[in-house]
Amino acid sequence: MDLSYFSNKITAALAQQRYGEAPETLYEPIRYIMALGGKRIRPLLTLLGAHLFTDDLDPIIKPALGTEVFHNFTLLHDDIMDQAPLRRGQPTVHEKWNSTVAILSGDVMLVRAYELFLDVQPELLAPVLRRFSQTAAEVCEGQQWDMNFETEGQVTIEQYLDMIRLKTAVLLGFCLELGALLAGASTEAADHLRQFGTDIGLAFQLRDDLLDVYGDAATFGKRVGGDIVSDKKTFLLLTAQAQANAQQSALLAQHIGQPVTDAEAKVRAVRAVYDELNVRTQTETLINQYFQDALQHLDRVNVPAERKEPLRGVALQLLERES
Amino acid sequence: MDLSYFSNKITAALAQQRYGEAPETLYEPIRYIMALGGKRIRPLLTLLGAHLFTDDLDPIIKPALGTEVFHNFTLLHDDIMDQAPLRRGQPTVHEKWNSTVAILSGDVMLVRAYELFLDVQPELLAPVLRRFSQTAAEVCEGQQWDMNFETEGQVTIEQYLDMIRLKTAVLLGFCLELGALLAGASTEAADHLRQFGTDIGLAFQLRDDLLDVYGDAATFGKRVGGDIVSDKKTFLLLTAQAQANAQQSALLAQHIGQPVTDAEAKVRAVRAVYDELNVRTQTETLINQYFQDALQHLDRVNVPAERKEPLRGVALQLLERES
Repeated sequence: MDLSYFSNKITAALAQQRYGEAPETLYEPIRYIMALGGKRIRPLLTLLGAHLFTDDLDPIIKPALGTEVFHNFTLLHDDIMDQAPLRRGQPTVHEKWNSTVAILSGDVMLVRAYELFLDVQPELLAPVLRRFSQTAAEVCEGQQWDMNFETEGQVTIEQYLDMIRLKTAVLLGFCLELGALLAGASTEAADHLRQFGTDIGLAFQLRDDLLDVYGDAATFGKRVGGDIVSDKKTFLLLTAQAQANAQQSALLAQHIGQPVTDAEAKVRAVRAVYDELNVRTQTETLINQYFQDALQHLDRVNVPAERKEPLRGVALQLLERES
Repeated sequence: MDLSYFSNKITAALAQQRYGEAPETLYEPIRYIMALGGKRIRPLLTLLGAHLFTDDLDPIIKPALGTEVFHNFTLLHDDIMDQAPLRRGQPTVHEKWNSTVAILSGDVMLVRAYELFLDVQPELLAPVLRRFSQTAAEVCEGQQWDMNFETEGQVTIEQYLDMIRLKTAVLLGFCLELGALLAGASTEAADHLRQFGTDIGLAFQLRDDLLDVYGDAATFGKRVGGDIVSDKKTFLLLTAQAQANAQQSALLAQHIGQPVTDAEAKVRAVRAVYDELNVRTQTETLINQYFQDALQHLDRVNVPAERKEPLRGVALQLLERES
């Protein structure tokens, strides 16, 4: 089954979704951010997780949208905290309106996300909302760690991996678990799918770190080296700092956390240290490890292999891999 | 039964409540704001609403705490928007930490509020959360109207009453409805209790407006005339503006929306217009009307009169009335 079959269901349902009317300053920002687009990967994972076990996706659609509304709520509030001017090339809500509007619209989006779960079978509602709430709190924890890391001197690789797990990966895992639970899968199968999604999420985030330094400017969409210029504590930087010899440490210290006079020179110098330490290969190895772990979890879900093809396809697409 | 019987249950349960551990910057602000105190009126209303129909309050406690956590979430986020330096005499969370921490801690509090409802009987969970979500969205709508009114030239009395209904009253109504529903009351009884709570909430907010101008500085706790000095569009000001003759309008326009040179003179001048127009009596009349409407709804709840005594007592206490 083609991925567009699932995507079309999501697009159609999102187009029909209503968030509220008055005051306009509360609800127009919600329509605005929801209309900015994006890959809709989270509701897609929920539908694909359900489709492993059922052909009847109608009862899955609203909860699937709940994950997308929740994700956009986090973007809205994160953009305030990051003082980001743009989101998908358009002004962020706090820029187009103001911070007050962005805080309150986000708050209502979190409420609307919960509401989108309320039609699930009564006996599943409490367990589903327990898992959703746990995931939601973890996403907030991840964002808070991320903010903390900006001002903390020492961040370990383990702390960093835990941060991206919370901030990004657990929600992808939950989306798959949700689909499975709603389609009547066993908790064991739902758990394997959750771990599949979490591993894919970790791989995806590490790949994002990698592309910032080694990506093709034309296809990456952001300025290559942006993380280096802004001293972002990525997997690559933390690995380099952990493994650098005295000379390399001194070189990194010359650039990281210092006022930037020549951004291109800074990127070149830091990347040279990465190259000496084989940071690229090390990152690729870890990405591959998460990817293989993910596939092992998918293998353990006891449904016919052809049922898994769309899900495997999305994972490959997310990581832009051929197999 | 004494009110302290119910208050003690709430205090004990709040003391045992855990919100999370790490990162500390996410969870310490939640413990901080929850420990600032307050009257805990919302969980008290939930317990009292339930106690009309049952003696078994144990299953009601956690959802009752959910209303208090939700209320404190709104305080936390409102304080950012209002740039308030103090809350109950202590630094607000965004002052003590920063706005990022205040936004994220608030977000997690909303999640924790939902979690506190998840133990209710499965068949009641969806209807309870639907009503909670509707109420939560309305509270956000009320806050957004309140923010909008600050910069809007024309606000009608009807718009103002609708704003305080959304921002303050509907949550009090929901708390009572929640208690009733969880105790197995009929939807008719739950609805009367909701309206009782909403009317009390409206009366309470109007009384707050009144006390700002005509209250006793020693017992009111805020600076008398603060609303007048800050040009706050209260019921009193909007009533005066709507009923003023040409001379009174000119007098109000001399002071409202103008730079303040002499705050005491401003309060005296505006209050003189209020006095001429009998705004105090008009406000007291409306408060009394809401109070009588509230009591009529309580009368219609079909339980023995003595069961209603604690609830009537809280309403009287909230409005500082003798009967």
